[in-house]
Amino acid sequence: MSAPDGKPVLIDTLAIVGVGLIGGSFAAALKKAGVVRRVIGAGRRPENLQKACELGLIEQAVTFSQAASESDLIFLATPVGAFESILAAMRPALKPLAVITDGGSTKQDVIAAARTALGAQAKQFVPAHPMAGSHETGPAAAKPDLYQGRRVILTPLPENRAQDVALVESLWRACGARLLTLEPAEHDAAMACISHLPHWLSSLYMQYVATGPQPELRMEIAAGGFRDFTRIAQSSPEMWRDIFIANRASMLQEIATFRAQLDRAEQALRDEDAQWLEHMLDEASRARQGWSGA
Amino acid sequence: MSAPDGKPVLIDTLAIVGVGLIGGSFAAALKKAGVVRRVIGAGRRPENLQKACELGLIEQAVTFSQAASESDLIFLATPVGAFESILAAMRPALKPLAVITDGGSTKQDVIAAARTALGAQAKQFVPAHPMAGSHETGPAAAKPDLYQGRRVILTPLPENRAQDVALVESLWRACGARLLTLEPAEHDAAMACISHLPHWLSSLYMQYVATGPQPELRMEIAAGGFRDFTRIAQSSPEMWRDIFIANRASMLQEIATFRAQLDRAEQALRDEDAQWLEHMLDEASRARQGWSGA
Repeated sequence: MSAPDGKPVLIDTLAIVGVGLIGGSFAAALKKAGVVRRVIGAGRRPENLQKACELGLIEQAVTFSQAASESDLIFLATPVGAFESILAAMRPALKPLAVITDGGSTKQDVIAAARTALGAQAKQFVPAHPMAGSHETGPAAAKPDLYQGRRVILTPLPENRAQDVALVESLWRACGARLLTLEPAEHDAAMACISHLPHWLSSLYMQYVATGPQPELRMEIAAGGFRDFTRIAQSSPEMWRDIFIANRASMLQEIATFRAQLDRAEQALRDEDAQWLEHMLDEASRARQGWSGA
Repeated sequence: MSAPDGKPVLIDTLAIVGVGLIGGSFAAALKKAGVVRRVIGAGRRPENLQKACELGLIEQAVTFSQAASESDLIFLATPVGAFESILAAMRPALKPLAVITDGGSTKQDVIAAARTALGAQAKQFVPAHPMAGSHETGPAAAKPDLYQGRRVILTPLPENRAQDVALVESLWRACGARLLTLEPAEHDAAMACISHLPHWLSSLYMQYVATGPQPELRMEIAAGGFRDFTRIAQSSPEMWRDIFIANRASMLQEIATFRAQLDRAEQALRDEDAQWLEHMLDEASRARQGWSGA
């Protein structure tokens, strides 16, 4: 069997579990690339599944058990806190050669959940994390080019079959993503620093303003700096609750280290240490200007 | 004398002191609106003055003393730390009916500087703060529509002449801005919260990443959240050094209050208090989604 452009179909039946931005975009990208024959969807919210059907992201809504029994590849894209119970529900019906992968933002916690829920079958689970997202959520936000040019980090397990890891890599390449392999702990520490801490600060700041004095006046005079700094505070509360808790150890470490930076800066401000402040601002400005990412 | 569209020229000679984004855009907007006949420029950087001449933002580069003796309106748009010495240099040559205004991000400190430098002539100084800016700086970044639809906050002095305040208001209206009047202390507290604290956190975070472990790997995998959260860390180090020091008292107050929020959240994370975290994230998300600004 071949896709219209001659590329071989890699996956006969793909199950998307959690048909929102991340799951829907994965399905859309793989369909567009012609590497998957059939896409089914499962999830906790019937209205999202129906919407995903209407949008053509999935062809059929199924139960977790059906998803397990019918699929060759299962992509988990719910908030990470739900992985363990979903995997436990799927385990009895899993095809022995099916590959499971995910789009979760944390990896040590997700791997522990997979080992608990799947036991020896955890070898079928190839953990991954696409570095793409949006404050927009749900199936309507899904788009086939979400992963184009984006980093996807794989943190394979020692017991994964090499061909299963290669399959997951091929699928992400078909989405246009660029691959990187890290140790799970290294992934989680890097994420705590480069993604979770900004979300933490942005959300805490936004709530601080909203619940502080004169919120109407203050938000009325807020400008472009506020707009960009707080954009990510709009993100899904449930998803970020799960990420913070799942990556708690790395987050607490990051928070402690960043607090030392805040303390040092507060002391410099108290001392009117213009030289320290300008040096800090200059290092920050140069580093950001030198960044060539997203 | 009338502008081409029949509106009266309000200002014969306008001096822009500091011909960067803020000063250059003010000149460009007023010229476009036809409310100023002649624009001259002064500043500390000859290369910026030359560039502003080439770009047509100013017609002539002059000394601070010439700017004082020839101008009917003087707009201060250098970093606020330079205001006192510049006003002191201009004072001996100031026309008695000239109006001085500014674009500085802090007001109590700027007013104190004006009183020190100008003495009784501080009554000619009408303090203002346009809520517009960019991480792009310098005359090349100036544009006539920078202030279109933006808030400009006036914090007039008790001794200001009413007609001088009215003139400054007319000019900002001619730039397309929307006006708001606040007490200087109220302005500074609101700015510390809604503008200066985000800049503080964004810059400290950016420097923290750049000087921490594996900065290349971490910035390599950074995505859109990082991009927006750190955009303002690119801003002018000199300008923000001056703002933080000028607004030190309000900033230290904000930092202390926000620290209590950080402490509370850290405790919730340590306790795995999912309910507290979701409530906080939900309040933040709703508040940001309800914001209709910039």
